[in-house]
Amino acid sequence: MTRIACCQLAPEFGDIEGNTARAAAAIRQAAEQGARIVVLPELVSTGYVFADADEARGLAEPADGPTVTGWRGLADELDVVIVAGFCELAADGRIYNSAAVLVPGAEPVVHRKTHLWDRERLIFTPGSDVPPVVPTPHGRIAPLICYELEFPEWVRIPALAGADLICAPVNWPDLPRPAGERPGEVIRVQADASINRVAIAVCDRAGAERGVEWTSASLIVDADGWPLAMADYTAPSATTLIADVDLLESRRKALAGLSDAFADRRPELYGTA
Amino acid sequence: MTRIACCQLAPEFGDIEGNTARAAAAIRQAAEQGARIVVLPELVSTGYVFADADEARGLAEPADGPTVTGWRGLADELDVVIVAGFCELAADGRIYNSAAVLVPGAEPVVHRKTHLWDRERLIFTPGSDVPPVVPTPHGRIAPLICYELEFPEWVRIPALAGADLICAPVNWPDLPRPAGERPGEVIRVQADASINRVAIAVCDRAGAERGVEWTSASLIVDADGWPLAMADYTAPSATTLIADVDLLESRRKALAGLSDAFADRRPELYGTA
Repeated sequence: MTRIACCQLAPEFGDIEGNTARAAAAIRQAAEQGARIVVLPELVSTGYVFADADEARGLAEPADGPTVTGWRGLADELDVVIVAGFCELAADGRIYNSAAVLVPGAEPVVHRKTHLWDRERLIFTPGSDVPPVVPTPHGRIAPLICYELEFPEWVRIPALAGADLICAPVNWPDLPRPAGERPGEVIRVQADASINRVAIAVCDRAGAERGVEWTSASLIVDADGWPLAMADYTAPSATTLIADVDLLESRRKALAGLSDAFADRRPELYGTA
Repeated sequence: MTRIACCQLAPEFGDIEGNTARAAAAIRQAAEQGARIVVLPELVSTGYVFADADEARGLAEPADGPTVTGWRGLADELDVVIVAGFCELAADGRIYNSAAVLVPGAEPVVHRKTHLWDRERLIFTPGSDVPPVVPTPHGRIAPLICYELEFPEWVRIPALAGADLICAPVNWPDLPRPAGERPGEVIRVQADASINRVAIAVCDRAGAERGVEWTSASLIVDADGWPLAMADYTAPSATTLIADVDLLESRRKALAGLSDAFADRRPELYGTA
């Protein structure tokens, strides 16, 4: 079993120093509770609701800048894997909504969000690379960022490439839902997991920002899509979820009887629709 | 709004005469309640738990045999669209797990299940055609059969081809789930619908058969994946679900803000994984 933590923080817009300090404190606390893998929200160092691309550029950092370097130091010091979102300034000057994967003793691995939600397309360049599948002492981890989880073709790629765990920094805006229903994003994560027989750890955020409210529905699901831990989204708050997950389960794609989630696919019929 | 009915019947294995009579009665009753589209379970005319291919062959009928011809007559007489599963004997002697779509005044359209669950692969030939998208007076209907719903690449195909409603005859075997959780199949149907912004009507079955219990979780979800009607799967029984569905909603792929479920896809990145 691997202990996984999702630190559902409440970033303050533009306060990189305060946000990274709060993130570091949460990571330390999760490590003290035995977590070996810690997931933080999307864009946790800067906040999310950029007015425009210029504002994002003013807060962006390269992947070897102080924010990611700080997380790298924590990963090494605490012997934890960290997956966290940041606003990336690329060498060519472009701005990406990115997630860093920090494995103790290894170079940072960065994934750039490919499917941009709503106004993000006015601010960020979309990434054009498939999510990496990063070897760690606990299994193979793939980062996906928020809206990427809503495209099953995209979730399928790291799953087929052998990911044991998808770690997803998200900022889920709070959308309407019928009384008594789980947020739609939660339902789709459950489906993503069970369809691929892969565990998923989602770290959402709390704290209204420039008028946007967040779902605050962080969750950790097993390879059947059943929640092992889920934030109380009816009372959004900064909180840390912890669950012990059997990541070896993600390598067993067999379903009931002769059925197999991967072997039963018919890719020859799927085309590139 | 279009009134849709799912007749969750309890077929008796091998009793084609009784099963088609019960199906006809349920279709008539649904039509009397104003349903314009009626969905029946997978393999509703024969039952599901075939011992082997020979037993299936003994019960199979061609697409112009009495079972489908009977449904065609009901569709014409009652002016309802019918989607129902049957055991098909093809001209070349092969046996398929098929669904017929009967539109009043039109030739029957048949879909052959492509993704075969568990022991079905020992009995049926897998279909090799994408699901048809059938024009009807109420919108464009695509049939999918049971396990096909569990492959999001496959659900995507009729959705991208313009289906307004997916009608799914199923026989969901009752698999374990944590207390308080909906059946995993229900969760995945909710995700299928919301990811594609397409309404889905699923007709499950009741009645244990040769030791197999069924989930009996028929449901009708809107294009956001929210249930409009759902059978009480905690007390499985033969029952008919009815819901009024705005099928025009399925033509609106816009999500919040600038987001769009279809336009935001990145098919150039998906390959044929």
